[in-house]
Order: sequence, then structure tokens, then C-alpha cells
Amino acid sequence: MIPDTETVRARWARVQHHLRADGVDAMVVVKPQNTFYLSGYTPMIYSHPVLVVLPAEGEPVFILHALRAHSSRTVSRISDIRPYGRWAKEIGPDHWWQVLAGVMAERGLGDARIGIEGEFLPVNYQRRLELTLPGAVFSDTGQALMRARYVKDAAELESLRVACEIADAGMDAALEAVAARRSEVEVSSAAMRTMQEVWSSLHPDRLAMDFGNLEGGVFNALWAYSLVGDRVPMNSAPPTSRRPVDGEIQWTVIWTAIDGMHAENERSVAVGPLPAERQRAFEALLAIRAEVQPVLRPGLTCAEVYEAARESYVRHGYGDYLPGRIGHGLGLGPHEQPSLGPNDDLVLEPGMTLTFEPNLRIPSFGGLQHSDSLVITEDGHELLTHTRRDLIQV
Amino acid sequence: MIPDTETVRARWARVQHHLRADGVDAMVVVKPQNTFYLSGYTPMIYSHPVLVVLPAEGEPVFILHALRAHSSRTVSRISDIRPYGRWAKEIGPDHWWQVLAGVMAERGLGDARIGIEGEFLPVNYQRRLELTLPGAVFSDTGQALMRARYVKDAAELESLRVACEIADAGMDAALEAVAARRSEVEVSSAAMRTMQEVWSSLHPDRLAMDFGNLEGGVFNALWAYSLVGDRVPMNSAPPTSRRPVDGEIQWTVIWTAIDGMHAENERSVAVGPLPAERQRAFEALLAIRAEVQPVLRPGLTCAEVYEAARESYVRHGYGDYLPGRIGHGLGLGPHEQPSLGPNDDLVLEPGMTLTFEPNLRIPSFGGLQHSDSLVITEDGHELLTHTRRDLIQV
Repeated sequence: MIPDTETVRARWARVQHHLRADGVDAMVVVKPQNTFYLSGYTPMIYSHPVLVVLPAEGEPVFILHALRAHSSRTVSRISDIRPYGRWAKEIGPDHWWQVLAGVMAERGLGDARIGIEGEFLPVNYQRRLELTLPGAVFSDTGQALMRARYVKDAAELESLRVACEIADAGMDAALEAVAARRSEVEVSSAAMRTMQEVWSSLHPDRLAMDFGNLEGGVFNALWAYSLVGDRVPMNSAPPTSRRPVDGEIQWTVIWTAIDGMHAENERSVAVGPLPAERQRAFEALLAIRAEVQPVLRPGLTCAEVYEAARESYVRHGYGDYLPGRIGHGLGLGPHEQPSLGPNDDLVLEPGMTLTFEPNLRIPSFGGLQHSDSLVITEDGHELLTHTRRDLIQV
Repeated sequence: MIPDTETVRARWARVQHHLRADGVDAMVVVKPQNTFYLSGYTPMIYSHPVLVVLPAEGEPVFILHALRAHSSRTVSRISDIRPYGRWAKEIGPDHWWQVLAGVMAERGLGDARIGIEGEFLPVNYQRRLELTLPGAVFSDTGQALMRARYVKDAAELESLRVACEIADAGMDAALEAVAARRSEVEVSSAAMRTMQEVWSSLHPDRLAMDFGNLEGGVFNALWAYSLVGDRVPMNSAPPTSRRPVDGEIQWTVIWTAIDGMHAENERSVAVGPLPAERQRAFEALLAIRAEVQPVLRPGLTCAEVYEAARESYVRHGYGDYLPGRIGHGLGLGPHEQPSLGPNDDLVLEPGMTLTFEPNLRIPSFGGLQHSDSLVITEDGHELLTHTRRDLIQV
């Protein structure tokens, strides 16, 4: 579902505000998440560079391959589309940088201060920018753009709610498969098939998509993996044929992305009755969650939330197992700022979307982690994933 | 399924051969596909940089976050693993560049000629490399590494065969859904669910995975989309609730990635009897495919194959619709070299893997394209996808 023009124009204004604060005259945006944010258009496959030129004042320009000219014209909220390359009867200059040079000259930005995405833009692209605009001065304004994306707009929150609904359905299927003592792969696949069904039958006009890199695209964002017992501390690892045995803990991770917005739902499950050490750890983790959760409210910094968690871990005797953070931002990327860790002074604001996921990784038996997606509200937060969060035993 | 140590060591030797030819002393490899190729290990989520230092002679070193130390030790074919950051009791220097500085000093590579991936490495990483190794000289050796990956080894071909088998199963499900006049989304989702079933029940020891970018990961590589009628010329676009009507052509694209190796299977399908213009175009495309396919054999350049296609398009009266290329390399990326286009002088060799996908995009009614995955053999090629390739009508 493509956000309306008004929504996208408000995004331009937010980013432009931060660009002016950073003292640049324009930003050349290449990262797929960001060009999607500013245009509402994704080619899905990023085999040919897609660029948005966003001046600090005025309308942006979209530069993309002739191959994408037709589809972008039907969808993009940026109306000034300039193709490069050839595709059937659509013929532009051979290269994106030739189009860029023309746009910058036309806008009087040839010798301007230009922002780029330093954490993303490949070296060769930067060299090409420098050759194309020899009088320009470049600086990294990736953070300026990211700051504009912290607080989500109504369209993003709507997409996130759908992403969470699908993630919940996937988790229901995963819990059922764990109860049947299925393997890591079977649990993962059961969740993914269910999410496909829910997406295609209930939300077919939403995009189930993720973002690729500059070489190719990756798109199928209804994703799950599951790890058992001593494999949990691997954190992220391809699932295997390993099945749980009684007394183990199985951990399932679900990530969905709807209209690009990422949701997360993770649950640890006791397979049969747990030995005492595991039972105690699971109960402690639930107590820590209960103590820290009320602190997720506007006005506090991420570091203050983390400090509350630290105290709670120590109080329950698990100070040695305090993770590096207990949650992270959700947006067009699966891991965004803010980070609920010790060094983030960002103040939580209504409209920010986060995961809440304190964990215990205990080498002797594995690990425990429930993760929920939430949005900060005027007076606290709202959990957007709804799977039961207690000591789940199957 | 992780390739054995011998296979991975042969990959090092191939890349090192090209690095020496390019005149560098070592390469710092960051692109996920490439670090996977050289190690057999993927963390799936690339939230923290993963680096391989491959000297032009000798053993490589793996640099990754402490969070991945445990899982990489159980899987990686590079045995020299140096973690940075902290994760439970695993504690390294804070940053990857501190570890890198130590490794380079130890190997006498502090002032060396260093290769980087210019098309991938972000500007800020390159700045960090320059600060860390002020005496080093950097050059782009991304192509050297890519050249080493052109000819696939036995492990890669085995993975590709499984990727093709799953893609074929997905296409069978898609064709059935098209026959039932389902929507673009329903056709796509039916294919994806079937591929999940085939992967999880028949190939659970294989990784169904794709590669993300530096921010996050994307993993679920059993992917399909379908476009109907006038939507086909969009080439890649999110599927919608649009259903076909009789006389239209529906085009379904399936991409799978097994153990990272990408396969492609695409089919155009006539929904009911076609009007004369479409029928004629479909027959012409099949004739073009039949004429060009025998040219896919070792010893010819990509440009020669393309020239054969050009002649065939002209002969059948579709010279105006000649696409920019009629196939592309398949590997750890979905679109790799070689490109079956006019400007590629690369000579086809046994073991290279490609798509074969001449197409006709005709604005008045949409487009037509079958795509198969294949491997170049000693005396020609072997098609690895097996869905029927005639004028499919449902």
C-alpha cells in the first residue's frame, strides 16, 4: 500500500529540516529504504541504482533506470522522474551520473554542499559523485535522514500493525509445531507458510517486502527461524533438522516486513517441564520484563530505560547476563535507532517504534527471550504483538 | 550445507591467483556473499560487519563480532577467527578496525597494497580503513574476486540443483493457480508455500537464504511474484489482487537461493486462447529460444551469443524488441556476470551458471518471457530447470 502524496510530502519536509540543520544544500539518497521512504516506490530489484536528489528546499527529483520508468510513473509520489539508460522506447542518457549532473546544474547545486549516506554509499559511487560534481563538498547526512524517520507517520503505523498481525499468526503456527516436537526447520517453515496464507488472503494489497542491496533484491519478508537448546546462543543461525527433547527451551524468531515496515515477535518455549535452573531463569526473565516494561514511556532516554533493566537484572541475580541492549528501533530496517542500550541519550517520543526484548543467554543450557513490537504513546506504550508472554510450556 | 574445507581452500587459491594478477598483497572482503564464499559461514544477520582478510599468499583471517564467535567457530572453514566487541564472556577489542590493525601488523601488511570491493564497501568503512592503515594503498579488486567465482565448484552446483528443483516445484504450484484464475498475490503465495514445503520436508539440511546488506539481514529466499497482462512490462513490481481475464498473458517469476546459490525459473502462460497478435509473438519467442539455445556452449563469447539472438529477433520481425541482454550469471548474487549482452567479451567456460531468458515486451499487451537456469558443460549446456517451455495455455 503506497502512502498518499501528503504523507510523503511531510516526510520530505522532515528530512529537509534536518538537512538544513546539518548545513547542506541537498542530499543524494541511494539506500533503498530511504528512496522508498521519500517516494513510496520500490522497484523491488535494485539491480540498477535508484537515486533521489532532495534539495534542502523545494521538490525532489527521482533518477532511475529506463527499465523502471513505467512502473515508477504509476506509483511514485515524486513526480519529477528522470530515467537513464534504455528500455524499449524509453531512452535516457547512458548513466545515472549524467542525469545527476544535469539536475544539479538546473537547480544551481553544482558547487553545493551535498549530503550522502556514508554508512551505505559504496566507494565507487562516491568517486563518481566527486567526478561528476567537482565543485561540490560532501558530508555524511545519513543520521539526519535517520532522525527524520524516528517518529513514524500514520501510514507507517498502519503497515506495522499489519506486520504484527501476520507475525502473531506465524507465531501461533510455530507454537503449535513446537508442541508437536517438530524440528527447527519444520517450525520455521510452518510459521512462514501460515504467514504467506494470512498475507495473501487477508492483506493482498499490502507489500510483503524487504530491501536488497545494490546488487540484487530480496523481497520475501515473511520470515521465521527457530533454534533449540544449546543452539539458542548462536542468536542467528540457519535452522536445522534438530528436534527438541523434553526439558529444553526452543526459541522462535519471526520477522515480518509489510510495506517495508518491520515487526518482530520472538518467543521462548519450555518443551515439557524444565529442570530447576532453567525454570528459575525463565521466571526471572519474566519478572525482569514486568519490572522494566512500565519504564517504556515518552520523556525517558534510552539509557535510562537500560539502567532500569540493569538494576532489575542485578536484583534477580543475573547481573552477569545483562545483554548489550534490551531493544531496538523498528522501521524500514529491521534494526534501527534508537537502541535501548547504555549509550543512547535519545529521548523516547510518541510515535517511535521499538522492540522490547530483555534476554538471558546462559551457556549451560541455551537462552531465553521474548520479543514484542511496540509504539511509544502519549502516556506510555502500546504493545503491537499479542502472543502470550508468560512461561509458555508445551 | 557447508562446503568442505578442501572446497573452500580451493576458493582461496582461485581468488589469490587473481589478486596477485591485480598486483595487490591482500584483500579486505566485506560483502556478505564474498565472506560466505571464502568461509562457508553466514551469520544470516549482518548487523555487525563481517570481514575476511585474504592475503595474496597464505591463510585468511576472519574478523567478526563477539556475538558471532560461537556460531562461526562451529561452522567456518577459516579457522583463524578474531572477535571484536563483547558478548557474554567473549570479549575482544571494541571495534573491528582495532582487530584489523593487529592482523595487518602481524602479517607485515600495514603498508601493503590492499584490495577492496569498490562497488560495495561504504564510504565510511573506506575512511576507517585509510585511518587504520595510513601507509597502505587501496584499489578496487571486486572484479578479481568475481572472476574467481565465475566457474562454480561441485558444492555450488549441487546447491544450485536443489535450488532449481525447489523452483520447479514452485512453478508447478504457480501454473496450477494461474489455471484456476487466481490473483497475482495468490499465485505468488501458492508458489512460496509449496517451496517452503519442499525445502522443509525434502532438503532441511540446506540453507534457504539470501544475503542482506550492512544494516540488517534478509533471508527467506524462496520467492515468487506474478504479474498479469499490462502489468508485465513493469518487470519487477509487487504483486496485487489483479486477476487475469481470458486472452491475457500471466508471467510468474521464481527465485530461489539454496546455500546461497540462486536459481531462476520464469514462465509466461496464456490464459485461455490468445488473440492473434499475442499468439504470433508467443510463437516467435519460442522460435527465437530454439534458434539461440544451441549457441550456449563453451568457447563462444557472451557478445557472440547475443549477436545470434539479435539476428534471430530480426529474422522473426521483432528486431525493435531486442532486450538489452538475454541472460545473466547466477551465483551467490541473483544477477552476476557474465551478462549475455552486446558488450561482454567473456568466453563461456564449463561450470559457468547462467539464465537463458530472451523476452518480448510489447506495450500493447504486456510481455512474454520464459527463463531457465543452466550450467555450461564441456560440449554445450545442461538446463537445470525443467518446467515445460512450450506455449503454455491454461
